[in-house]
Amino acid sequence: MIAAPYLLFLGNAEEALSIKTSRGIAQWRPELCVGEYRGPQCTVTTGQPQMDFAEAVSQGAKTMIVGLANAGGYLDEYSISSVIAALEAGLDVASGLHQSLAEHPEIARIAKATGRKLHDVRKPPADLRVGKGYPRAGKRLLTVGTDCSVGKMYATLAIEQEMQRRKLSADFRATGQTGILIAQSGIPVDAVIADFISGAVEQISPAREDDGWDLIEGQGSLFHPSYAGVSLGLLHGAQPDALVLCHELGREHMRGIPGRPLPDLRDCLERNLEAARLTNPDVQAVGVAVNSSKLPRDQALRACADIEDLLGLPCQDPIAHGVAKITDRLSECFELHAVV
Amino acid sequence: MIAAPYLLFLGNAEEALSIKTSRGIAQWRPELCVGEYRGPQCTVTTGQPQMDFAEAVSQGAKTMIVGLANAGGYLDEYSISSVIAALEAGLDVASGLHQSLAEHPEIARIAKATGRKLHDVRKPPADLRVGKGYPRAGKRLLTVGTDCSVGKMYATLAIEQEMQRRKLSADFRATGQTGILIAQSGIPVDAVIADFISGAVEQISPAREDDGWDLIEGQGSLFHPSYAGVSLGLLHGAQPDALVLCHELGREHMRGIPGRPLPDLRDCLERNLEAARLTNPDVQAVGVAVNSSKLPRDQALRACADIEDLLGLPCQDPIAHGVAKITDRLSECFELHAVV
Repeated sequence: MIAAPYLLFLGNAEEALSIKTSRGIAQWRPELCVGEYRGPQCTVTTGQPQMDFAEAVSQGAKTMIVGLANAGGYLDEYSISSVIAALEAGLDVASGLHQSLAEHPEIARIAKATGRKLHDVRKPPADLRVGKGYPRAGKRLLTVGTDCSVGKMYATLAIEQEMQRRKLSADFRATGQTGILIAQSGIPVDAVIADFISGAVEQISPAREDDGWDLIEGQGSLFHPSYAGVSLGLLHGAQPDALVLCHELGREHMRGIPGRPLPDLRDCLERNLEAARLTNPDVQAVGVAVNSSKLPRDQALRACADIEDLLGLPCQDPIAHGVAKITDRLSECFELHAVV
Repeated sequence: MIAAPYLLFLGNAEEALSIKTSRGIAQWRPELCVGEYRGPQCTVTTGQPQMDFAEAVSQGAKTMIVGLANAGGYLDEYSISSVIAALEAGLDVASGLHQSLAEHPEIARIAKATGRKLHDVRKPPADLRVGKGYPRAGKRLLTVGTDCSVGKMYATLAIEQEMQRRKLSADFRATGQTGILIAQSGIPVDAVIADFISGAVEQISPAREDDGWDLIEGQGSLFHPSYAGVSLGLLHGAQPDALVLCHELGREHMRGIPGRPLPDLRDCLERNLEAARLTNPDVQAVGVAVNSSKLPRDQALRACADIEDLLGLPCQDPIAHGVAKITDRLSECFELHAVV
């Protein structure tokens, strides 16, 4: 568990994209954030109050989040000195970078000396087991995709927000680094040893008896030749009762594979349902979440209506249109009632 | 590349099953073996000549193979002292155990001092890339299964042997530890980071322009809830032209999952073909290889005939019946002609 509240470290970022992780945390968990720390050349912001390490600590911050994305995923000199200063000020540090905090000798030494914790959220835990696929208690929803990076995490978080607004018990379960920082826990499923993919997902969404839903962040696509193995193991481990298909309108080819077309939406949904039945024969599709940011609003709405006709499922852009119709369908299919 | 010829180390094994890896090497690659080394309590044999380390070296052995299977996959005291003695006698050492040779301080020190190589074949290489699924030259056959441990490696090796007998160019490509020791190279696909499953298989079966076939050892099953992710990534990375479905007659449940039935053979084949089309739309099934060791010969032959009727494919037990009919079908489908 990553201790909250957070101070978001933006370094010297000059592009919105490179603070995507911090923006995601600030958007979905503002209540977890006390502020942001910007380096002298930083030109972007999450909108959180700006503060230094001492001020963050005095406002109750427990962990600094290094949520930067740079080309190699490495720790630059400014980040290293800032991490050390944050540790010395009394903060734990959590990082979504490829380069490990714990394996940096100076950072590791200071963390030990100050008694602070380091969290490398791309590194899976060491105690994983293989999945078994035995039926387990509780209800689970999984987002699946036509491709990578089509908005599965956003869709999952939007459904959590909408369910909670309706007083339905629901918890986001994270499988990627940004999701883990948002949820304060989780396992980066694409980084586990291949034998443990489904087992890792069983571990983050164990049996639950409280009528609440686990809303599991999907990864990749059964139709992506690089990552389909991750997606299939995730699907089997999630043992989902409900699937939401995620898709980006107007995407021209599979991510990272110029020339490879996106799958047909109906095929993609059918193949996911078919594979999901291995561990949950009663799985149902409850909606389609699209990223329509490439299209004008009227075109996006027309495209959603076409998808609704094609698949017989509600289709919405979680950012532009919300997920009320998808949540309605989920509630109908599973007869959900607000917890009073 | 693991240097041959080999000395097979049997330790103090008292059961045939615990020297399965060494027996596999002796069966499929007798030309790679000079002999076996047995400890004082050893009661089993591969049939190879017995010899000590010095004698093995004098007969040209280059590598000692620690192919033991024990419950935890660990190195016992007798194995450790034997590995050290083998290194000092001038042998490299290759191991299929979970516990790493290279991470054992004393073994690592002696290997360094003597200039010998250590091969931990369960440890994947560090330089893996993600798969891309781009069409590549050459022909590839992959064995897929209804379950784990149904004879995929044996079937693949039997087809290699039969093709080579017919002067067809074919090379076994290994994806598991026993296979890697047999092939002298390969990648343990179930041990790679999940993101690299398909990429690892692209790496072991790169484009080839010589009209030869890569015969790729399959792993797991699309229908095994623990390992299906490995099987799907392997299928996409293999980009197979031909599939051989492997199955054990009379198996009562999926391996390790009491109560979970085996998939229907027709469903299993169809789902493998469907998934394989993502990276090779022209994939064809060419046969079914069964392990019929639980049945009397007449029942086994009747079961094979039934499967042939059901699927319209030749069905044979590679050990009991050979793979001539499967290889005939492969040759017909792909118009193969002997290299003169």
